[in-house]
Amino acid sequence: MTPLVFDTTAIKRATTPELVFTAVRDALIAHAHGRTTVPPPLHLHFPHANGDCHVKAGWVTDTPDFTVKIATGFYRNPTAGLPTNHGLVCVVSARTGQIRAILDDQGLLTAWRTAAAGALTTHAMARPDATTLAVFGTGQQARLQAEWLARLRPIDTVLVHGRSQDRTRSLCEEFDAIGLRARPASADEAAAADMVVTTTPATVPVLRAGDVRAGAHVTGIGTDMPHKNELPPALFARAALIATDDHQQCLDHGDFGHAVRAGFATDIGDTPVGPLLDKPVERPDGAITVADLTGVGALDAALASAIVRQLAP
Amino acid sequence: MTPLVFDTTAIKRATTPELVFTAVRDALIAHAHGRTTVPPPLHLHFPHANGDCHVKAGWVTDTPDFTVKIATGFYRNPTAGLPTNHGLVCVVSARTGQIRAILDDQGLLTAWRTAAAGALTTHAMARPDATTLAVFGTGQQARLQAEWLARLRPIDTVLVHGRSQDRTRSLCEEFDAIGLRARPASADEAAAADMVVTTTPATVPVLRAGDVRAGAHVTGIGTDMPHKNELPPALFARAALIATDDHQQCLDHGDFGHAVRAGFATDIGDTPVGPLLDKPVERPDGAITVADLTGVGALDAALASAIVRQLAP
Repeated sequence: MTPLVFDTTAIKRATTPELVFTAVRDALIAHAHGRTTVPPPLHLHFPHANGDCHVKAGWVTDTPDFTVKIATGFYRNPTAGLPTNHGLVCVVSARTGQIRAILDDQGLLTAWRTAAAGALTTHAMARPDATTLAVFGTGQQARLQAEWLARLRPIDTVLVHGRSQDRTRSLCEEFDAIGLRARPASADEAAAADMVVTTTPATVPVLRAGDVRAGAHVTGIGTDMPHKNELPPALFARAALIATDDHQQCLDHGDFGHAVRAGFATDIGDTPVGPLLDKPVERPDGAITVADLTGVGALDAALASAIVRQLAP
Repeated sequence: MTPLVFDTTAIKRATTPELVFTAVRDALIAHAHGRTTVPPPLHLHFPHANGDCHVKAGWVTDTPDFTVKIATGFYRNPTAGLPTNHGLVCVVSARTGQIRAILDDQGLLTAWRTAAAGALTTHAMARPDATTLAVFGTGQQARLQAEWLARLRPIDTVLVHGRSQDRTRSLCEEFDAIGLRARPASADEAAAADMVVTTTPATVPVLRAGDVRAGAHVTGIGTDMPHKNELPPALFARAALIATDDHQQCLDHGDFGHAVRAGFATDIGDTPVGPLLDKPVERPDGAITVADLTGVGALDAALASAIVRQLAP
């Protein structure tokens, strides 16, 4: 049986936001309860080409499939007219080991599960009447975080804070085109929104803890390596509730870890995101809440498996 | 660019024994000189289904492609009429990170590179006038080791020693069908052949050190985990030359490691196989030589890359 290969056209046709939200929510809940398997990844480096390859596997316990994701980044490719990133997701039966399908997804699944995890978390933790959203960053996730959150709750205004004026303006235009009212904002103004989502590769905090208002919620999704840092450690000291998608990962290379090492949070001061998605979050009036998301490998398995069930039932 | 998938029919059509021998020889030489990259593999276990998945990557430095190999073993599959093993080999450009091809090889490449590595080593280390070959074991590699060695030198007689009389007889018939004279033999008789190759999953030695004759060569290819052991430790004390395909691996989970721990060899008493393939091995008359092969991941890369160059030049 030769494995089926599906390209992005097939994947997009088979996938709805509801499917992604359900798969990601269930996987975050399973992960919080220890019902996932995520072995240490495999890495290869190609210094001569300024490239690397990461292979990650994940499984949600007792679900039918696991995944092996191969992702490459070759940072000189653009000069040769090639995309920097390439890869695929291999979906394998956890009952028979047979390879069910190969998703030639061009990174789509990782983008979707990151967007859905952020949107679900921001929606669950923010005040029900919060309507202004600020995004820090102007890349793919800046766009997706707002777009996917707007599927879960009404957003009145999107404030965009980016380093490049051109990219900030162009992202605002993209938001306008999909019916989201958006405008550029300074870091201070953006930090004062009801909901703040940071999506940058920053290595120093992108906002000031004192600018975040009482009653606001902040989600950081960009910090995925020890040297990166988006959220100011002092913000964690102001937070009534700190949620992490993976306690150990966030301690090791998330904003939460920076806060703990700086003495602004204790290393048991967080709660897993998963259960917060299951029932309304109880938050005191005027409380600040913070979520640190570093990316959970089992979400790849859950999402890829759900898509393959649509493509090859 | 959707990656090309090649099945076993296409792979067999594109591959000659010469191509396999050349790729494997060059990769063993490169490995001996430290010109390969083999990161620690990634493992997943599925106890409920008695299954596991291993992901291995390899690269021969400065060659155009690297590989990521996914291999599953689900040991209850035969009761459901499914093969135990499944997997694929992903061939990726080491210059751009683009996935060049997926080889849906059903384990063929691993079987071929193991056969070629064993045959090349046995041929290089055995006396030029050695003509009797004994194989211990009756599985796929028992057949392939003899078949591939016969491509490199004339074999007068193949002695087959297996635990099952039926399987031993049937392997002898298979050898006869391809023009190799073969007959069942006791362990003592087989151990006394000019060339001995062990291809079993044994956990206790399959032959006695004292039964191996002066001037003989012995290659062990079955010991690939710490609890396995095919060659008696005392044989290594009789050997004038001990070759390993990977020093550290053979120490860790090869027959060489058992011999070192039992005090029959020193942990620097081995030489890498690679350079022995390059020029005639100098062996004193009457010397016994031993090779311990545990399998080198970079061979996968070398072979898969060579095949893909034929399939998609």
